[in-house]
Amino acid sequence: MKIIDIYSRYKKDLANIEKELESSVQSDHALLNETSVHLLKAGGKRIRPVFVLLAGRFGNYDLETLKNVAVSMELIHMASLVHDDVIDDAATRRGQPTVKSKWDNRIAMYTGDYIFARALGVVTRLPQPEIHQIMSHAIVEMSVGEMEQIRFFFHTGQTVRDYLLRIKRKTAYLIAISCQLGAVAAGASASVCDKLYRFGYNVGMAFQIRDDVLDLNGTEQQIGKPPGSDIKQGNITLPVLFALQDPQRKVLLLEQIESIREAEGQGDVTPFLEAIRRSGGVKRAEDLASRYIDRAIEALDGLPARQAKKDLIRIAHFVGNRSY
Amino acid sequence: MKIIDIYSRYKKDLANIEKELESSVQSDHALLNETSVHLLKAGGKRIRPVFVLLAGRFGNYDLETLKNVAVSMELIHMASLVHDDVIDDAATRRGQPTVKSKWDNRIAMYTGDYIFARALGVVTRLPQPEIHQIMSHAIVEMSVGEMEQIRFFFHTGQTVRDYLLRIKRKTAYLIAISCQLGAVAAGASASVCDKLYRFGYNVGMAFQIRDDVLDLNGTEQQIGKPPGSDIKQGNITLPVLFALQDPQRKVLLLEQIESIREAEGQGDVTPFLEAIRRSGGVKRAEDLASRYIDRAIEALDGLPARQAKKDLIRIAHFVGNRSY
Repeated sequence: MKIIDIYSRYKKDLANIEKELESSVQSDHALLNETSVHLLKAGGKRIRPVFVLLAGRFGNYDLETLKNVAVSMELIHMASLVHDDVIDDAATRRGQPTVKSKWDNRIAMYTGDYIFARALGVVTRLPQPEIHQIMSHAIVEMSVGEMEQIRFFFHTGQTVRDYLLRIKRKTAYLIAISCQLGAVAAGASASVCDKLYRFGYNVGMAFQIRDDVLDLNGTEQQIGKPPGSDIKQGNITLPVLFALQDPQRKVLLLEQIESIREAEGQGDVTPFLEAIRRSGGVKRAEDLASRYIDRAIEALDGLPARQAKKDLIRIAHFVGNRSY
Repeated sequence: MKIIDIYSRYKKDLANIEKELESSVQSDHALLNETSVHLLKAGGKRIRPVFVLLAGRFGNYDLETLKNVAVSMELIHMASLVHDDVIDDAATRRGQPTVKSKWDNRIAMYTGDYIFARALGVVTRLPQPEIHQIMSHAIVEMSVGEMEQIRFFFHTGQTVRDYLLRIKRKTAYLIAISCQLGAVAAGASASVCDKLYRFGYNVGMAFQIRDDVLDLNGTEQQIGKPPGSDIKQGNITLPVLFALQDPQRKVLLLEQIESIREAEGQGDVTPFLEAIRRSGGVKRAEDLASRYIDRAIEALDGLPARQAKKDLIRIAHFVGNRSY
């Protein structure tokens, strides 16, 4: 079973969402259209819209309603990526040039602002104040997480807890509320919404951990950017923190990180990547991701045995083993 | 009569709003607190909160409700200023160092994102979908306006119409909806809300024109930053466009603008400022600002003769003659 098989069941609705994504960023401003469409065409897994749709299956499934949640979640995600690329000095993402490299930092910043504003416009089509409150809370947390990331750049003394809190803010919240708000918009009960929130939160944590693992031991082809991008910009991720816990490796790793920092993104990170791969850090991080997946699946206990539940479980397993 | 006299009538409520502004940006993140409080302490005229309060006087005035509108309007304004400073490469604003100069561009970008997210959090306390829709529409327009500004940098062929559309998006919309939403939140009739919107729109246009005039013929002490900042960054404003319409001045002005562009913000803009001051451009821009003020006051026709109406008219006149 591949993720594409799960997606194929929702192909029509996802195509509908894709169209809505495109029309939602349209404006009479040529450059904004260009940058926004560039971002949309660069693709992405659309995992947030998929979760919105699947969660909507536990209430009154109405695509016209759910579409607004799905599109705004994906747009918020995209907006945060554009701003991340400004910070990360990233030249490519998903194998495509970033807005900041194709245009410039200012244009990337305002494209992010614009897409974010569009996301709000889409979600205000839904009347429930609860939806707006949940969304704005998640956005505040995301922006704190973005700032946190800067503070912890090259901070080798940070704890695993610091890391987990950061990825919670950066990634897990938005995936959690994608699941939750799909259910809220479909009028599901509070208990169902809560289960889906917890599912999304745990999948989101696993998703980011796997993403961080891939940056350390994936190939450029797999991840659409050169491996080691995280450490080059100072982002110390879970496998590295685990590796640093080994007293026999710590001294060498700290030296390597320091020289990467001094090289300001220009140095060769291969020796560092090899050292991390040799340490048990990658394995330990993968194990923790698997535990999050287990918790995600547990969170679904008590939900009716619908196709959507099976699909959520399949996606969770897929995220747990992802190598794309 | 000074603006401070009008403000003094609402001193208690404004102090209340100031407190709410401070508490609304609080987080357990030290750097975000620091940057946000730095921005708040840098001050500002708080004209948007004042308009929200005055508009609220034409419905059921309830400070607890209006406060949410006032605070979110001011936070959106502040967030857009921080992002503007990134683009403008501004070292000071209102006589204070900018976030980007005191910290850096990345921190300024994320501080803007954070303050913006907080603004949304505050406004979601209000249940009316109409408020969220009006606000998100204005935010989309603002972000288009920000991008427009970049496109028109050093673009001497732009029309007065291009300029007016840009300042409408950049400034007038947010002031217009501050007036409108104060009335909406207070439950005023659609006709009252509409009059206040038009008042705010026209005052906002005048406000930005006067701001742009001041950048050309004010002193550093008056405006809190060196005069000529606009042209240094390529922002061609109304007095310049009017001056360029004079065939006898055009050639010299184009040469001056070109050499300012080539100097990349380092050159001496005094000769250019003097040329603009000698042209009739400043006078014509001031005249247009006055016409907007007249229209703003006309828009209030038919509103009940309350103290708030008198104060709105006074503020409008003040904006029309501003030299602060």
